[in-house]
Amino acid sequence: MAAGLLVVLSGPSGVGKGTVCRQLLALRPSLQLSVSLTTRQPRPEETCGRHYEFTTPSRFQKLISGDAFLEWAVVYGHYYGTLKQAVGENLARGTDLLLEIDVQGALQIRRRLKEAVLIFLAPPSMEALKERISGRGTEDAVRIRRRLKAAQQELAAYHLYDYLVVNGRVEDAAASIDAIIEAEKCRISRGARPPASGGEER
Amino acid sequence: MAAGLLVVLSGPSGVGKGTVCRQLLALRPSLQLSVSLTTRQPRPEETCGRHYEFTTPSRFQKLISGDAFLEWAVVYGHYYGTLKQAVGENLARGTDLLLEIDVQGALQIRRRLKEAVLIFLAPPSMEALKERISGRGTEDAVRIRRRLKAAQQELAAYHLYDYLVVNGRVEDAAASIDAIIEAEKCRISRGARPPASGGEER
Repeated sequence: MAAGLLVVLSGPSGVGKGTVCRQLLALRPSLQLSVSLTTRQPRPEETCGRHYEFTTPSRFQKLISGDAFLEWAVVYGHYYGTLKQAVGENLARGTDLLLEIDVQGALQIRRRLKEAVLIFLAPPSMEALKERISGRGTEDAVRIRRRLKAAQQELAAYHLYDYLVVNGRVEDAAASIDAIIEAEKCRISRGARPPASGGEER
Repeated sequence: MAAGLLVVLSGPSGVGKGTVCRQLLALRPSLQLSVSLTTRQPRPEETCGRHYEFTTPSRFQKLISGDAFLEWAVVYGHYYGTLKQAVGENLARGTDLLLEIDVQGALQIRRRLKEAVLIFLAPPSMEALKERISGRGTEDAVRIRRRLKAAQQELAAYHLYDYLVVNGRVEDAAASIDAIIEAEKCRISRGARPPASGGEER
């Protein structure tokens, strides 16, 4: 059986990763969203075990000491991370995993798991990103400027990824990512084999 | 402007390259079929300039001496080849080109044009290939055995390609190749850039 793909969808803050993820999961039901571990409080609509699993800072720190994370980060005082074991078990079982993650996390995965497929979601223009970041309406001018500056720095890291998809229309972006997954499954360097040469056994 | 892709669709004799090509061209009208030059006689339904351009052996040999071919071969006494200039002009213009070609020709392109996307079309099984080769009804047992033996040797070359697509259902094979083209256009190593960083100019 072929191992599953680890598909990392990442990009600057505000680019619309979450929306594209949902659209992609609808297009490709065999793809499974990877669950992150976090120490922040669940939001009212969140239930444990879907996108996030919730834990305490002390348990999180123990897991860090035990080198249990494929990637982890502290964002606004809360820990977020992806456990190696959960990812490894899913991939070994042949499940394709989707990881929606910030740029720092994606670059940790680049270093640790060469076979991950890294997709950078880019805004159609800097102006569009600005609009999306300020349009949320929940943040003041100082925060917006800070997020925009961070987004600019994150954009500069795109060249460390494998693929770049522009998030103009959500449907188009999700379709392109779906095509990337389909193509990666046909890559001979990933083990695609002609059935006639006994490849089905691998 | 981004350069066009050279997509090489190849695989063993009898695997159904022509049928998959036609289906793919219907799916992706921007893809242009590359025209080969040949010294064989046109078949009744063939017109010059679509799939083949017809020429004389002496002109073909002059072009060989002038190193004008990206690949060429002699098959059953007739010359077949792809001219460098025609391919180069189309790619420079941003046109994506589809080249339907035998395994020997594809491997010549592998050596000469690293950026070509090589797709190996494989039969769903050796039995299916046997059926397709004998099912044409136009050939005797000796010829069928010869073609089957050649097909087995050609199958063994799959690992020199970038992608492998199994031709079970024609529609599925064409859709996978369409996805591969879509994905290759998103590859950062091919020059995909975020619009916000001025990448549209390249």
